[in-house]
Amino acid sequence: MTTTAATEGQYPTASSYYKSGGIDVWTLFNQAAAKAKAVNLGQGFMNFESPEFIKKASQKCVADDACNQYSPPRGRPNVLNAIAKRYSRILDRQLDPASEIVVTAGANEAIYAIFCAFLEAGSNDEVILMEPAFDQYTPNIKMAGGKPVYIPLRPVPGSEDASGIVSSKDWTLDMAELEAKISEKTKIIVLNTPHNPIGKVFTKDELEAISNLAKKYNLLVISDEVYENLCFDPQTPHIPIATLPGMWERTLSVYSAGKLFGVTGWRVGWLVGPKELVSPSLTAHTRIVFTTNSPLQEAASIALEEADSNGFVKDQKIVYHKCRSKLMKAFDDVGLPYIQPDGAYFLLVNASKVEIPDDFEFPDEIAVRGKSDMLTYFFTTHIGVSGIPPTEFYSPENAHIAENYIRFAFCKTDDILDEAAKRLQAVKKYVRQQ
Amino acid sequence: MTTTAATEGQYPTASSYYKSGGIDVWTLFNQAAAKAKAVNLGQGFMNFESPEFIKKASQKCVADDACNQYSPPRGRPNVLNAIAKRYSRILDRQLDPASEIVVTAGANEAIYAIFCAFLEAGSNDEVILMEPAFDQYTPNIKMAGGKPVYIPLRPVPGSEDASGIVSSKDWTLDMAELEAKISEKTKIIVLNTPHNPIGKVFTKDELEAISNLAKKYNLLVISDEVYENLCFDPQTPHIPIATLPGMWERTLSVYSAGKLFGVTGWRVGWLVGPKELVSPSLTAHTRIVFTTNSPLQEAASIALEEADSNGFVKDQKIVYHKCRSKLMKAFDDVGLPYIQPDGAYFLLVNASKVEIPDDFEFPDEIAVRGKSDMLTYFFTTHIGVSGIPPTEFYSPENAHIAENYIRFAFCKTDDILDEAAKRLQAVKKYVRQQ
Ligand SMILES: Cc1ncc(COP(=O)(O)O)c(C=O)c1O
Ligand SMILES: Cc1ncc(COP(=O)(O)O)c(C=O)c1O
Repeated sequence: MTTTAATEGQYPTASSYYKSGGIDVWTLFNQAAAKAKAVNLGQGFMNFESPEFIKKASQKCVADDACNQYSPPRGRPNVLNAIAKRYSRILDRQLDPASEIVVTAGANEAIYAIFCAFLEAGSNDEVILMEPAFDQYTPNIKMAGGKPVYIPLRPVPGSEDASGIVSSKDWTLDMAELEAKISEKTKIIVLNTPHNPIGKVFTKDELEAISNLAKKYNLLVISDEVYENLCFDPQTPHIPIATLPGMWERTLSVYSAGKLFGVTGWRVGWLVGPKELVSPSLTAHTRIVFTTNSPLQEAASIALEEADSNGFVKDQKIVYHKCRSKLMKAFDDVGLPYIQPDGAYFLLVNASKVEIPDDFEFPDEIAVRGKSDMLTYFFTTHIGVSGIPPTEFYSPENAHIAENYIRFAFCKTDDILDEAAKRLQAVKKYVRQQ
Repeated sequence: MTTTAATEGQYPTASSYYKSGGIDVWTLFNQAAAKAKAVNLGQGFMNFESPEFIKKASQKCVADDACNQYSPPRGRPNVLNAIAKRYSRILDRQLDPASEIVVTAGANEAIYAIFCAFLEAGSNDEVILMEPAFDQYTPNIKMAGGKPVYIPLRPVPGSEDASGIVSSKDWTLDMAELEAKISEKTKIIVLNTPHNPIGKVFTKDELEAISNLAKKYNLLVISDEVYENLCFDPQTPHIPIATLPGMWERTLSVYSAGKLFGVTGWRVGWLVGPKELVSPSLTAHTRIVFTTNSPLQEAASIALEEADSNGFVKDQKIVYHKCRSKLMKAFDDVGLPYIQPDGAYFLLVNASKVEIPDDFEFPDEIAVRGKSDMLTYFFTTHIGVSGIPPTEFYSPENAHIAENYIRFAFCKTDDILDEAAKRLQAVKKYVRQQ
């Protein structure tokens, strides 16, 4: 065996962007959670059993030789047809499976492929992100040669109730501020509705205001609708911005089989839009991963067909709704307020009233990251319930907006949420009484 | 339903790189093959039945709830351990599964992630590609902000036998020419052994010459070894360049579960190297796809473990060896020479003696692409056996080297290869006698 111990300078060096890499927040807190044996409400993966019809679908497909080989880069005919069927209804227009859809390696890769396709490398094309913004957007924009420009959602002053709870409806965008952010260089606005992590479901009025700006300045809208199915308030149903007048022509809508069917590990998603926008996205996708894994995209076609009639999609929503109530109640019980989400499966808890004992010790890599990380770390290691610091979803200049918050995911089974509630009791003694 | 017919100018426009996209050669010839009902020896996917133990592995994993959720970006523990076990042997050193491996969405995404991690965007870092070069390398380099620099493999003059057959051993690299291509800007050399499409297996001498240059100029070597298992001549076994002295420190070796187990649709691959090179690659991978699909990477861990003892890997090689003989014989029978491959599963057939009738009509999109495309199109639509024009694997300045060649894949069952042989008889009357 070779035993060369190479000294540092001997290695070819990574580009500056990646050298600064370090550990990502997911790995950091997943490791801390595992070490502390915390109830992990950090990452948004489900611990539900996958439904039988979905497992059957994937078992059938992996056993099919034809499904074990490369698929066409755009996607397999069956899944393109199944997507066209579902989203023709949702997007209220007849979709052409042969030109208006691409099956991607998760919504993540869909969004990255779109950035690659539409941002001119080296020209600092700008992309507007609403903060908090899903943490992959910023690096994906930079990798594609673009420049993120941030506008924060902000709570309407005085909108909290007596216990400090704010509705996600009251986290809003200042449309004048948004317009002021648009420059000559702006090419894309990213919209995420239902929103991770705020749980906001954008209203028709809000979407109209955004679309007016998109049309006025000829912008592409990437509409990240991976939580399309999880809207808990009938007052704010999910509205795809592509259905607004004049918006089909400038919108790529992105969806996730992982989120829709509770199988985040499948890495199957899709993007939908007019041929003119889909074609360059397909070209980028083809170069990035060539094509999406075949057995699970074929399985998604079966899942899409069956979910249509077996009520799964509706049932899922009811399950998540119950999970949301359970987690909100757990925090009500210990006197910590939160942003009440109308959609998605995250709860942003306001932990400003939590007083961490002076002698509580933080590892350096946590302390340098700031208050939200310290609060999250305290919950993870001392209370035994782990989350994710939402400051990770912010640019440095706006991160202070979320410094008191911790994000907890409620896409979890009752036993997990009950155990979390039990452990959360321990936080009571650290909660400052007003 | 909305019926807005959008006029052209209304769509946000793609970046210049993607606007010029057009249809890729795979789609072009797959479509032509399907239309002509040709025997498809174009794309390198297998039409063998997947072996039972592999299907069982994937069926088990898709039924496992834990395997349906996100995996750690680096990969699942079981597959990292199984990879460490196999490649500790192959790379002749004890691998650390926790730091020296990343599981990727196919070898394709592995290579792209490495380019992203090591090329400084906007600085035109150079990457040396040996031509013919797998057609994803060039776009992947450009997307990562780098610049490909090409050096062709060339046949040793006079090395063909009486019937015009040349050994892939006689397609060689001029090492002085290679050194002359290295500039201040050069960061990476891409090596592909066994080589697609030439079938060359680089010898120890050749690898040493390349590694001397890599060390002299502090270059990173991406060693694309997806055909690691397919070497047909005991005289030229597969040698990973990372096993040469001083090369571990500057090599990322890339492998493919799709190729190793004949399941190209799984989109599971891996990269192996020292922590210093793997870390930035992992960061890029995490941003590009976040993580590789879980059920099939878990299944790959079972396949790796079982293949170790059940003889599958050795048996596979024998099967491919027989396929190679069959396809070579088919071309011997019609008097067309080729490059005899020592590895991989492609045959480059020299069709310069084929005289296409003057009145044979080519669609415009084929005619503009040049002679190799026209020959391939003639075989696809008139003879009924489809291939891929290898000029796709060249930069414009060197494409003439391959203008007489057609690439046929022999990773196909006997019935397919027999049918191809039968149909190829029809080409005889177009083959000019010397
Ligand atoms: C807002 C948002 N977009 C995209 C994604 C990525 O989805 P996928 O797992 O399909 O890549 C996530 C996952 O958490 C998300 O929250
Ligand atoms: C030389 C070479 N590298 C990489 C790949 C991509 O492998 P994968 O299917 O694992 O992405 C291929 C596929 O044909 C190939 O021929």
